[in-house]
Parts: sequence; structure tokens; C-alpha cells
Amino acid sequence: MMFPEIAPLDDALRPALRAAIDDKTKPLGALGRLEDLAMQIGLICGTTQPALKRPTVIVFAGDHGVADAGVSAYPAEVTAQMVLNFLKGGAAINVFSRLHGIALEVVDAGVRAPLPASPGLVNCRIADGTQNFAETRAMSMEQASAAMMAGMARVLRAAQQGCNVIGFGEMGIANTSSAACLMSRLTGLPLADCIGRGTGLDDDGLARKREVLERALALHADAVAPLDVLAAFGGFEIAMMAGAFLAAAASRMVILVDGFIASAALLVAQSIDARVLHYCVFSHCSHERGHRALLDHFEAEPLLALDLRLGEGTGAALAWPLVASAAAFLNEMATFSGAGVSGASA
Amino acid sequence: MMFPEIAPLDDALRPALRAAIDDKTKPLGALGRLEDLAMQIGLICGTTQPALKRPTVIVFAGDHGVADAGVSAYPAEVTAQMVLNFLKGGAAINVFSRLHGIALEVVDAGVRAPLPASPGLVNCRIADGTQNFAETRAMSMEQASAAMMAGMARVLRAAQQGCNVIGFGEMGIANTSSAACLMSRLTGLPLADCIGRGTGLDDDGLARKREVLERALALHADAVAPLDVLAAFGGFEIAMMAGAFLAAAASRMVILVDGFIASAALLVAQSIDARVLHYCVFSHCSHERGHRALLDHFEAEPLLALDLRLGEGTGAALAWPLVASAAAFLNEMATFSGAGVSGASA
Repeated sequence: MMFPEIAPLDDALRPALRAAIDDKTKPLGALGRLEDLAMQIGLICGTTQPALKRPTVIVFAGDHGVADAGVSAYPAEVTAQMVLNFLKGGAAINVFSRLHGIALEVVDAGVRAPLPASPGLVNCRIADGTQNFAETRAMSMEQASAAMMAGMARVLRAAQQGCNVIGFGEMGIANTSSAACLMSRLTGLPLADCIGRGTGLDDDGLARKREVLERALALHADAVAPLDVLAAFGGFEIAMMAGAFLAAAASRMVILVDGFIASAALLVAQSIDARVLHYCVFSHCSHERGHRALLDHFEAEPLLALDLRLGEGTGAALAWPLVASAAAFLNEMATFSGAGVSGASA
Repeated sequence: MMFPEIAPLDDALRPALRAAIDDKTKPLGALGRLEDLAMQIGLICGTTQPALKRPTVIVFAGDHGVADAGVSAYPAEVTAQMVLNFLKGGAAINVFSRLHGIALEVVDAGVRAPLPASPGLVNCRIADGTQNFAETRAMSMEQASAAMMAGMARVLRAAQQGCNVIGFGEMGIANTSSAACLMSRLTGLPLADCIGRGTGLDDDGLARKREVLERALALHADAVAPLDVLAAFGGFEIAMMAGAFLAAAASRMVILVDGFIASAALLVAQSIDARVLHYCVFSHCSHERGHRALLDHFEAEPLLALDLRLGEGTGAALAWPLVASAAAFLNEMATFSGAGVSGASA
């Protein structure tokens, strides 16, 4: 499988950006992490006056065969029900996208139940959900490739529409199980560090989840290469997100990384091309156990820590106003010289 | 001096708000701290469908006589220069207010240099800056009362214009010195825990600031009652903010608390009526040393931790989209029953 080339950021622009940031009418460094963010946005856009356009969140939905092993507090039917909720505009990601001027796209990556055709739903169904990875590989290598390609295609379409800042969300009952296995295998961290309560498992449920996933990791001990690991543990929505991350970086987009599942998909993308990380803004630290360790793996310090654990791209949507603020201060604030404001004493 | 009465929040509404939040189409608690925020907003507005209207930031600017003691990295002239920058729309608070739909008001609380009359500038000048509190009280009791009244009046005017969510910002060279003394005296914490580099003092500057403030605290050892402490250490912008906090709570507004200076003003307000805190959303933890300890005093966990140290109300403005998001999910998200989404297994 061929992946698009991701350009490194042009460090030659760094001094000009630093000078532009430091000449703004504020004490040196007084905008804290927004200044780092403005620097990154400038480097990604390749200019000291970056224009972020058509902020977009794409939500990928897919079902997981492993849900049948009782690893989630919610039944698998909820994936399809929530997709219908997205289409009706009633989910959290709808509310936040409307409020913050974000274009929202919903993609059926492979929900188990058939969904009615709808103008708001992009059909990229790979299959009626993945296989139960506690018993067999979640998907074939062909399916994994097809899903990654589909994710890339959605990003290229967003780019054609003028988008250069994007986030990816997901819906898929049991996908914290998929993400935990991907994380454990690709980082080498013990499963216990990667596993959490998902949508709200109790202690017994968590113990069962752990047992199922330990066995699955042993069953797929042969899956080591990134695409093999992806195919072994799925899901379709995660594979699409992995492809989407690579395409977004190749398209020089500012990427808003959502929570635990999105970060697991990014881990797959990183294992294919580590330069994807230069384009990533980590939006929040999820309450789901495992996310902090995964952020540490990326050496990332997210913008928000609000104990969110909803997915759908909600963390990315909530971080967007901060990202927009960083670009806006760089573009719009007056300079010391221009505003006639005295500088600090030496 | 008479202060407006602040009503306690109506806890009777708590169960209805909890039920409304929990019936939204998301796992229980999955929106984390936004759920606590939605609860608080609902309690303040007294309804399960709170409408936040005309978000407003009022920036109070004032000069400090103590600036002459060399406690700031910037000269006192910068206060007036920055007010002109606010009026021209070039400061960070202008940029963030425009971006996030916040009405911005600039108040001259007592800048040293005369400022040209401008339609964008509200003249509440108490005097041409405060006295140097290293030598004498920063202001008289009459000035302290007049400043608090002026701050209250601005909030009542905002309320008349339909505002029910408000933040207060400030500009005043040397006002971290004023805030540090207020904090030390009113909390009983040692000055060393309350003092920081402000806009960017080096080690020598910090040592000088500490020496000046230690002497000033000794000089005004008799100032213990809240209004005495305020009069001793100033400044006019802090006194106006203290009055503004009380009036905003009395007007049942959601209050966005900015950084270190705003928190010091809130401390004065709290010492007059502790119920003001129920109306406060702490927007961010400033990089200025002292703010974390002050937040701990309030038992507050702020929404953002971005190492900001700019003032002007910038932290409040950046937190507003999160506060709006909390109200929006409570008002707009579908319910489990309404959307036909299955709940969690017992």
C-alpha cells in the first residue's frame, strides 16, 4: 500500500514567526501555550499570517465484533442509533460543531445494522462490522487497506472544499477494546496500562474486558507490523482515521487530535510515517485510562483536561476555539512599534 | 458602604438538572467537567434551559504609584499606551473578544496620564493613578468606595443591556504588586507565596519587588479589614473589579474569573460576601506565581491551564467558548428516550 508523502515542517520560518509573536503588544511569552500553538500553525501553513479555513470534523462510525464478548457497557445497536442521532443533529458533536462553526461530516465506516440512505451520511461501509478479534482477525488486510484509503479520500475531499484544519471523531461500541490492543501491541506497554472503563464498565465488566483482551493479544501474537496489528484488532473507523491522519498531514492541514480512540488511530499512522505528528495539535486528555500514557508516548501535552470520555470528536471541537484564537492573535494583534507601546526595560 | 445582596443558589433545582444532564445521549458523566459547569450555569440561571446572553468583558485600567519603586519590567506609561491599543482594537483581548462574540468595554479607572475622550472609553477616573503604597496608603477610603461603586455601576449597566455572563479584565503596570499584597494580607499566606515575576522581572527585579512589598506590608500592618486592605494596597482597577464581582453575583450572572489580578479582586469581594464564589467560573490558572495558591484558597479548579500571564481578561475570553458549550449541550442535545438510543446495561 502506498501512502502520501508528508513534508517535514520548514524550520527556516521559525525565526520570522518567533519575531512576529514577540513583537505583539504583550509581555514576552505572556500568551503561554497559545504562542507555541501559533508557532506550530505558522510552520504548518508555511507563513507568518496563517489563515485557518473551513474547520471540519469527520466522524467515522463502525461496529466491532468483539462487542459480542461483553466488553462494553452498551449494546452494539447503539452505534447505529447514535449515527441516526448524528444525522438528526442531536449528539454532543452536533451541538459543539454548530456552536463553533465547524463543518461536520458523518461516515459509515462499517456499522453492523444497515442504515437508511441519507444526504448527511457518507457511505464507506467496508462490511457489516468487524469480526470478533477474540476469535479471529477483525478484518482482512484488503479491508484494512480499503478502510485507510477511504479515510484518506474523505480528507482529500475536505481539502478540495478549502479545509485546512481538521479533526476526526468516532463512534463504535467496544472500540476502546480495539484501541487498547492497538496501543499495547504498537507501544509495547502492558495491557493493564492501556485498558479502561470505556463508556462506563463496572469492576466486573472491566475484569472481563481485560481477560478477553489478554487472550486476544495472545491469539494475535503474530501481528507485529502496523497494518497487521490494525487488521488484527480493527476497527474500520479506526483504520479510516489512521488513513485520514496521514492524508491530512500530507495535505498540510492543522490536525486536531481527539481522545483515546483517535490517538490509537494516530499511533497506527505514526508507525507508518512519524512526521504526521508535526501536524497534530492534541486537543484534550481523556478520562479513559490509557490516554495519558498514549499522550506521553507522543510526548504531547494536550490543550484541555476536562475529563471528557465521549469521543465523537467532541474534544477536537472544543479545542478549536483555542486553535482559532492562536491563529487570530498572530494575524490580528498590533505590534509594539505599530501601536506606540513601550517595551520592557532591559 | 452598602453592598447588594447575593442570593444563595437554589439547590432544589439540582436533581432536575442532574436528570436533564444524565438523560442526554452520552454515557453518564462522559462530558466530564462540562457537566459540572452545566449544573452550575443551570443553578445560577435558575432553570434547566439556561440561556447565556450578551457575553461581556469589562477591562478596568488604572495606574499604581508603586510602579515608581521599580517593581515592574515595564514603565507606568504603558498603562495609557495599552488603553489606546484597546481602543484601536489591537490588543489580545480585542482579538479574542471579536473572535468569540464577546462585547468589550474599556474603563479608565484612574490612569496616570490623561486619555483623550473616546466613544469606546468609559471615564470612571478616581484619580491620576494611586499613591505609592510603599510610602502611604494607595487610596483613601472614599476613593476605595467610589471605585467599588463605579465597578458595580458598569455591571448594572451591562445587565440592563441583557448581559448575564461576564468577565473582568485589567491593565495596570505594577498591579501584580498590589495583588500580591492584597493576597498576602487577606489570606494570611507569606508574601513569598504571593509574589511573582509579573510581566517579566529578572531575578534582581524580583528581589527588589519583594523587598519593596515586604516593607509596604509592614508599613500598613494596621490594614486588616477588607476595605482597609483595599485602600492600603489599591489599585483603582482592582477596587472596581471587586465591586463588579459583587454586583455580577447580585445580578445572578455567570462570572468568568480571569487570572491573578482578577482573583485578588475576587478575594476582596469574597471577604465582603463569600456567596460571590457560587457565581464564579474560574477560567484559567495563570503562569504568575501566587495564582495557584489563590485558586487553592478558593478551592477552585480552573478550566484552562495554558500558562497565560497577560491579564486584560484574556483567560476569561478564552474560557467563554467552553462555558457556552456547557450551556449548549444542556439546551440542545437529544435525550435517550427522544432519540431512541439504548441505555447502558445495568
